[in-house]
Amino acid sequence: MAPRGGEAQAHREDQAGIDRHVSAARLRHEVATLLQSWGMAGDHAASSAEILVQADLFGIESHGVNMLAIYEGYKDSGKLTLAPKVATIRETPVSVLIDAGGGLGHHPSLLATDAAIAKARGAGVGLASVRNSNHYGAAGIYARRIAQAGFLGFAFTGVGRPSVVPTGARQAMFGTNPIAFAAPAKRNGPFLLDMATSTAAVGKLLVASRNGTAIPPVWAMNAEGQAVTDADEGLKHRMLMPLGGASKETGGHKGYGLAVMVEILSTTLAGASYAPLRPDSAKHYDVGHFFMAIDPCLFRDEGAFEDDLDAMIDALHAATPARVDTPVLVAGDPELSTERERLESGIPISPSLDTLLRGLFTRAGLPFTLHG
Amino acid sequence: MAPRGGEAQAHREDQAGIDRHVSAARLRHEVATLLQSWGMAGDHAASSAEILVQADLFGIESHGVNMLAIYEGYKDSGKLTLAPKVATIRETPVSVLIDAGGGLGHHPSLLATDAAIAKARGAGVGLASVRNSNHYGAAGIYARRIAQAGFLGFAFTGVGRPSVVPTGARQAMFGTNPIAFAAPAKRNGPFLLDMATSTAAVGKLLVASRNGTAIPPVWAMNAEGQAVTDADEGLKHRMLMPLGGASKETGGHKGYGLAVMVEILSTTLAGASYAPLRPDSAKHYDVGHFFMAIDPCLFRDEGAFEDDLDAMIDALHAATPARVDTPVLVAGDPELSTERERLESGIPISPSLDTLLRGLFTRAGLPFTLHG
Repeated sequence: MAPRGGEAQAHREDQAGIDRHVSAARLRHEVATLLQSWGMAGDHAASSAEILVQADLFGIESHGVNMLAIYEGYKDSGKLTLAPKVATIRETPVSVLIDAGGGLGHHPSLLATDAAIAKARGAGVGLASVRNSNHYGAAGIYARRIAQAGFLGFAFTGVGRPSVVPTGARQAMFGTNPIAFAAPAKRNGPFLLDMATSTAAVGKLLVASRNGTAIPPVWAMNAEGQAVTDADEGLKHRMLMPLGGASKETGGHKGYGLAVMVEILSTTLAGASYAPLRPDSAKHYDVGHFFMAIDPCLFRDEGAFEDDLDAMIDALHAATPARVDTPVLVAGDPELSTERERLESGIPISPSLDTLLRGLFTRAGLPFTLHG
Repeated sequence: MAPRGGEAQAHREDQAGIDRHVSAARLRHEVATLLQSWGMAGDHAASSAEILVQADLFGIESHGVNMLAIYEGYKDSGKLTLAPKVATIRETPVSVLIDAGGGLGHHPSLLATDAAIAKARGAGVGLASVRNSNHYGAAGIYARRIAQAGFLGFAFTGVGRPSVVPTGARQAMFGTNPIAFAAPAKRNGPFLLDMATSTAAVGKLLVASRNGTAIPPVWAMNAEGQAVTDADEGLKHRMLMPLGGASKETGGHKGYGLAVMVEILSTTLAGASYAPLRPDSAKHYDVGHFFMAIDPCLFRDEGAFEDDLDAMIDALHAATPARVDTPVLVAGDPELSTERERLESGIPISPSLDTLLRGLFTRAGLPFTLHG
């Protein structure tokens, strides 16, 4: 759940030369059709399609329609309730708690995001938690949605299966627990940070494995807790290092601390399941999410926050670059420029994505109509 | 403004063998006396003394009474208003905005923290911003205060002088912009994360310089943007790397993104000054802070959050350690154990701290009474 500009870049490079593109609207329609054939209600399927295709628009293929293959696995293993009862189970003027009923995370998370926005419109701040949920796609999409409504937006989530190892341990105790934060500007696009609290997410190891390149010694470890540089070995053990690496000297205890913070906000606050303590007999992952919207007008005159953020973003773009011809970027720049490009020319369908989708549609007994 | 267990440890080692200790109460009294002699009001001086001595209780000497030498410099250069008018300039049922009047940050920050707690008691969530402020000490102290009141606590701050370099740049554009987050448990002490968003804070370079040890190549760079391993060279350039280092490959863009997030929450939201855009003619640093308190009962039954957090902390302490005899720690463990020890046996006064304090008292025309 941790897209980054770097990963988006890697994926874009993988797909250089692809000349098959489909419009976002067309892809959303196809994905929704597939999910309805699984037994999902129309509005739930539409929400999942919206979030997955938005990740592809952002260039974050690791969290895009690719994820459908994972969800199919959840479905087949009974980890997913396809027609969940999503219910608001606690509410105040500043908060809402939603039970996702064991279904996919996208629909309840859109409801939660919009509830946080509505609360912020009324009270200046809105908090929304979701429990009994599942994978919700790319965290930044929810944070950006809040920024588009004019508020500072936060989105956090736990992850069903642990992969991140605390400093001083050799046991995975957290998922890649992302932090997403967005804030509205005027002349510029929103500031949009969406980062795993691990140094690198699993998707980056997959790219290195495909390309046969070594991985830096701050990404993953083996069962003995030693750094690995072979991507396949890293994928086998699935023991990622927190942001900053495995040692305190390089700041790894900070990435570990951030992972705990995200777990507390997403899991403990929502009353969801902390994965290492979840009984093996549990039917669902019971993932938790947390969203928050803050109205800058609690503290600033109308428009002043956005003006100041524009000035900061401009100053960062104008900062002395390390390489003369490579300007300094601000979080969100890669995603927003890829989105502009793909809204124009469509989402590229790589041969591997074509194969993946074709398999999904065939197994669902549906015609596959995304031909070139 | 970024204490960490590692730094606390280093400082404790520096002070091994010291047998002069003073009680926290005695040290607070002396510090308050000194600050009043500078012209500060009694309540402001008491707040500063409380926060500074609390950092020493936590073992975070870099943010303890040591800081008085820095504050004396601010005073002498006119960067500090000694008798500021601190005023609430905007308020809603969930928020408060405080103008610190150009004085030290401790007193307005304690007011803001307590206002956030009071708002959370009423509405379930409380947000407090401070503008026109200055150094406020160790961020974790405010977050812990919120957790002691039963709420999830956040504290963020900007920093007057930039020292952290964005990914792809060779110009400092942020301070060490700390994130502090605390959450209440029952059987365990609170979870207490307090971290600079740089890989290492300036204090760690000072320790390495004193000890003549090399620094890891992810801490600091020279004017050309190249990593330095000599602590003195790092201190000369004052160009720190974000958490994750200077490269995207090691996750440095995430530390950079977190630094921007903290700057937006502390500076932009409060309407304080973003240091790189502050006019040279500005009298004050105009630092901004942000505090937030969240009542877990918005989402959980009374006590359920604390029970679940205890279970998570216990699971982390019991995780398989990398070294058999070194148990896994949780953020806050080093600070809270040092606090217990120092509340019992007093705060150690090293020869260098003795010299520093003696100079301050002498220059203020006060008798120095902290003799052994």
